[in-house]
Amino acid sequence: MDILKGLLEKSNSKILMVVLDGLGGLPVKDGKTELELARTPNLDKLAKSSALGMHIPVDYGITPGSGPGHLGIFGYDPLKYQIGRGILEALGLGLEVRHTDVAIRGNYATVEYVDGKPVVKDRRAGRIPTEENRRITKKIQENLKEIDGVQVIIAPGMEHRTAIVLRFPEPLPEGSDEINDTDPQEVGKEPLEPVGGNPNAQKVAQVVKKFIGKVAEILRDEPKANYLLLRGFAQKPNIPTMEERFGVKSCCIAVYPMYKGLASLVGMEIVEFEGTTIQSEIDTLKKVWEGYEFFFLHIKKTDSYGEDGNWEGKISVIEDFDKHLPQFLELKPDVLAITGDHSTPSKIKGHSWHPVPLLIHSPYVLGGTSDRLTERECLKGELGILPAEKIMNLLLANSHRLKKYGA
Amino acid sequence: MDILKGLLEKSNSKILMVVLDGLGGLPVKDGKTELELARTPNLDKLAKSSALGMHIPVDYGITPGSGPGHLGIFGYDPLKYQIGRGILEALGLGLEVRHTDVAIRGNYATVEYVDGKPVVKDRRAGRIPTEENRRITKKIQENLKEIDGVQVIIAPGMEHRTAIVLRFPEPLPEGSDEINDTDPQEVGKEPLEPVGGNPNAQKVAQVVKKFIGKVAEILRDEPKANYLLLRGFAQKPNIPTMEERFGVKSCCIAVYPMYKGLASLVGMEIVEFEGTTIQSEIDTLKKVWEGYEFFFLHIKKTDSYGEDGNWEGKISVIEDFDKHLPQFLELKPDVLAITGDHSTPSKIKGHSWHPVPLLIHSPYVLGGTSDRLTERECLKGELGILPAEKIMNLLLANSHRLKKYGA
Repeated sequence: MDILKGLLEKSNSKILMVVLDGLGGLPVKDGKTELELARTPNLDKLAKSSALGMHIPVDYGITPGSGPGHLGIFGYDPLKYQIGRGILEALGLGLEVRHTDVAIRGNYATVEYVDGKPVVKDRRAGRIPTEENRRITKKIQENLKEIDGVQVIIAPGMEHRTAIVLRFPEPLPEGSDEINDTDPQEVGKEPLEPVGGNPNAQKVAQVVKKFIGKVAEILRDEPKANYLLLRGFAQKPNIPTMEERFGVKSCCIAVYPMYKGLASLVGMEIVEFEGTTIQSEIDTLKKVWEGYEFFFLHIKKTDSYGEDGNWEGKISVIEDFDKHLPQFLELKPDVLAITGDHSTPSKIKGHSWHPVPLLIHSPYVLGGTSDRLTERECLKGELGILPAEKIMNLLLANSHRLKKYGA
Repeated sequence: MDILKGLLEKSNSKILMVVLDGLGGLPVKDGKTELELARTPNLDKLAKSSALGMHIPVDYGITPGSGPGHLGIFGYDPLKYQIGRGILEALGLGLEVRHTDVAIRGNYATVEYVDGKPVVKDRRAGRIPTEENRRITKKIQENLKEIDGVQVIIAPGMEHRTAIVLRFPEPLPEGSDEINDTDPQEVGKEPLEPVGGNPNAQKVAQVVKKFIGKVAEILRDEPKANYLLLRGFAQKPNIPTMEERFGVKSCCIAVYPMYKGLASLVGMEIVEFEGTTIQSEIDTLKKVWEGYEFFFLHIKKTDSYGEDGNWEGKISVIEDFDKHLPQFLELKPDVLAITGDHSTPSKIKGHSWHPVPLLIHSPYVLGGTSDRLTERECLKGELGILPAEKIMNLLLANSHRLKKYGA
């Protein structure tokens, strides 16, 4: 990080980073991976004249969540910058988070009142339908907008899940999120009191206590979801922006709130648009092409199908991307990177620790090492196996943004 | 290290690590290494469907001793955890070392008394035969069992070498081994006084002084070995156990005391057995298979022949191991690792700094990168060139022992 600081210089060149979420895989048929099975004539051609390699998102053997996975490819050490559970939940449900906020993950629960005290009967309120969640969450939001000058924002998730943002009038000091989960983790117990681990957190905890009480009142007559258990109290992490750190004016083109949220954490501007297809993302990219220097374009479905173990689905997304590749190339980015934030092998049906295929195209690559953008071909590439965090160095160098180090 | 702490989870899966000591080599005939010259049909087959790579035991260009070499592949930073010379000597001669102990390397020497003071005439007592060493060491042990409540344990090594353990009644504070060697490094000089570098070490040094005096008395009439020079004062290092650090119940199957000793330093249980062959080790492994989760099985002779420059001997051990490989596979370890603790090229006749071939087999590898477990084929593998310390991360990940990092 420090080494870059003194070396950065301005450039008008454009870096395009396309992230196929969960790109890497393992053999699923005839000993071949999803990337190997996919028919990708455009990618194949590009790969032959590109720098290829594999990146390690966090460390050997470590399976990253979406937060650490993206921080790494954005050029940030995912061990240094940690994104709390509540923040991620809030971002995932489309809430904005600020330095004045504490974000919390909420689970609707069923309690029974014994001698006036709540005792947990079901920690997930019988996994109420998402529709039901929306109705209840709306009811809370309409009846509870503010507590002692603290704004309350609540968003429904799937089934019993919600995200809550408590927005204070002033930026919160670090450590204000040091508050224990209220979920007792067992039925038959009272929810735990939220207790602050330091004076700043204690002030927040006071508001949280009132919030819990008011929600319980509002939900008093609900048959199932009559209580809210809170977990993962978290503040927005202090991360320097892409502009501060790398000198690039950056934007994010993504369909899902989580990824827009992650991009906003590193100061990217979020470009809003209609549609969910790769074509709609490209159309958006074309529209804003003149306005930025670094473009993060996120394609989600490779990961979704990987998580489902649907390797044919994952292949179809890769092939769909391949069909659109010429449009990306027509924009003539000075540097084009194609990679994933982590691997999601269909075989594992989840994120994994495996290194992730990486392609970098620019006039300044060696090329000619590999025939395709696949796991095995990337292993032959000129980039070797490198930490995700170093990708950004290479993109800056290839875009003429790094001066010589030393004389 | 810290990252693993929060991510460990229990699993019943079994990890088998087979260490062929000094495995890696250099070309010795027709441009081929020992591994390349060996006929290894079983390993070849396994390699095709495994993850291959090369590990660097300590750092680029650094030739490791057995201590750092094994610490690395056990998942410990060999620069952080250092094993003193005396400890290694004691372990190598089969002595147990505890936190109450100071271990010392002793060399029998010949002194002449001038004005009642010893003057070194031969620092190695003419390299007395090992048989002679055993007789003398036994004589010392029989006549000297204890000094001021400190138990004295002494074991014969080869030629003039011995190991001594001084066992105090209580655990010794850190730094109690800060005592200078007594060997003056030159003939014609008096042995040096053992002096403690701090108050705790000074207490130990008092006992050492008496020990030296008593040994000199006992050996007074010996023609050659009439004195003992002491070197490498060392305490047992404070290393978290494999169970503490990685959550695995581990055991060691090894023939030579040194490797059992190293395994015991990281808390492995040492399985004792009769015999010295690979078959006897496998028979032992089968017997204890149900009782542990991590198995370290050590095969010594690859290193011994390498040290002798006997590449044909080294090849024969590799081929012998290959014949036994099916028996390892029949146990169906969830994860199998085959590697060395360092390279011992026959061409160099000693340990070397060269990266060490590494094979990891599990259902979660890419495979298909390489045809054999050889230096050159491993370079094509999916693991790349990685620090030895990271191998354990991969074994834990492949055995379902690591949760996702971040959300």
